[in-house]
Amino acid sequence: MIFVIKIGGNVIDNPEATDAFLAAFASITQPKILVHGGGKIATQVAEKLGVTTQMVDGRRITDAAMLDVVTMVYGGLVNKKLVAQLQAKSCNALGVTGADAGIIRAQKRPIGEIDYGFVGDIEQVKAVQLLAFLEQKITPVVAPLTADSHGQILNTNADTMASSIAVALATATQIPVSLIYCFEKKGVLLNPADDNSAIANINKEKYTMLKNEGIVSKGMIPKLDNAFSALEKGVNEVRIIHADAIATQQGTRLTL
Amino acid sequence: MIFVIKIGGNVIDNPEATDAFLAAFASITQPKILVHGGGKIATQVAEKLGVTTQMVDGRRITDAAMLDVVTMVYGGLVNKKLVAQLQAKSCNALGVTGADAGIIRAQKRPIGEIDYGFVGDIEQVKAVQLLAFLEQKITPVVAPLTADSHGQILNTNADTMASSIAVALATATQIPVSLIYCFEKKGVLLNPADDNSAIANINKEKYTMLKNEGIVSKGMIPKLDNAFSALEKGVNEVRIIHADAIATQQGTRLTL
Repeated sequence: MIFVIKIGGNVIDNPEATDAFLAAFASITQPKILVHGGGKIATQVAEKLGVTTQMVDGRRITDAAMLDVVTMVYGGLVNKKLVAQLQAKSCNALGVTGADAGIIRAQKRPIGEIDYGFVGDIEQVKAVQLLAFLEQKITPVVAPLTADSHGQILNTNADTMASSIAVALATATQIPVSLIYCFEKKGVLLNPADDNSAIANINKEKYTMLKNEGIVSKGMIPKLDNAFSALEKGVNEVRIIHADAIATQQGTRLTL
Repeated sequence: MIFVIKIGGNVIDNPEATDAFLAAFASITQPKILVHGGGKIATQVAEKLGVTTQMVDGRRITDAAMLDVVTMVYGGLVNKKLVAQLQAKSCNALGVTGADAGIIRAQKRPIGEIDYGFVGDIEQVKAVQLLAFLEQKITPVVAPLTADSHGQILNTNADTMASSIAVALATATQIPVSLIYCFEKKGVLLNPADDNSAIANINKEKYTMLKNEGIVSKGMIPKLDNAFSALEKGVNEVRIIHADAIATQQGTRLTL
């Protein structure tokens, strides 16, 4: 099994939670890739630098000044701290963005109703390179940034990056691939106000039902869309779990 | 020949000079590693963030707040822009700090007359990993940051990193290693006011003479010390040249 594990920004914002997560992650003996979100630090740094944060549906509008901020914070501060901490836990981490070793090529999102600015839509994942790193016992730690073929860095959604990586690996290798979204909740909640209401299994039919009833909403929708899309495209297991549940993988398991 | 090329901060501060340098660098067909300095961007970002820059003998004092700034700027902004630009020039760049894949382990500099803060002294370079990257046609692009064995990120001098990498490669492989320091001058100048006064060759005797006469001074002294040390430790060729002279390698060549 190859694990592609995404860790959300809310976990990264909490140093104790991050440390506990990294310890559990480092102890996975199978080949693994970590994809991390950005967290609130980018917004805080942007504010101090006088760069205004604009969000539409939970997605950041990325003008040139904000692109510099996220390149610094995601690609530098967050990524390198995770790498150094994992190395100290004997996990041979290698911090990358999509640009590094050409792992993920993207294109700038076309301007539609909303101009998201320097935001990337993934075109291609170089699975062969990721597999080469894994064979060398290297654990890629992927920041939510990509670049286009002209060298333009692009802010890119971490959930989508994780799912695209998992799909590309599942396509390129016979080894089963497990995609795990870790965040600050115990899974897909039936009652958003009750953290213990996570359902153990969800299939597409149930998902559609919960979405129509408004129980699954907001940020969970693109996350689940990404997750189901990965399953449909050959990823063997997909889970949405709490960041402290890496060892047991208990949370919500997705099936088609 | 394996090339270890260091590009100085003053070049990186100039986008046109950087682009020209990267084009020449990308066109080197032999295995190559790029080590980059920080440039003035860190100081500018620090200022905007309200972090005070303190320099002693051209070296930055790195407290916790400044460490975050250099981690963001060197490891994120500068490194990832160089990587994305090199990828666009068909050079398979991989941005790393010393922490990534455990390439360079350092220790925090002991507090002496001056407390430099979170500054790293290099302990070990994992040449085997760098050679593995080169064999895969990957070009490591190294930011001036390392980490200690406890996961503490450390600000580290780029000239020293370049020389340590070159020495480690020269020790680990039979392939000759060439170390080139690229900066904004045409080499070691006999008259600091005359940019055309670069000497073609300098040996240790001549260096000592020029140092005693005060002709070689300030930032050139640690640079030349690093450079001669690399030659003494088995690096085959060492040059100090202008960033626009990569193709011809004309500038100052060092000999023992």
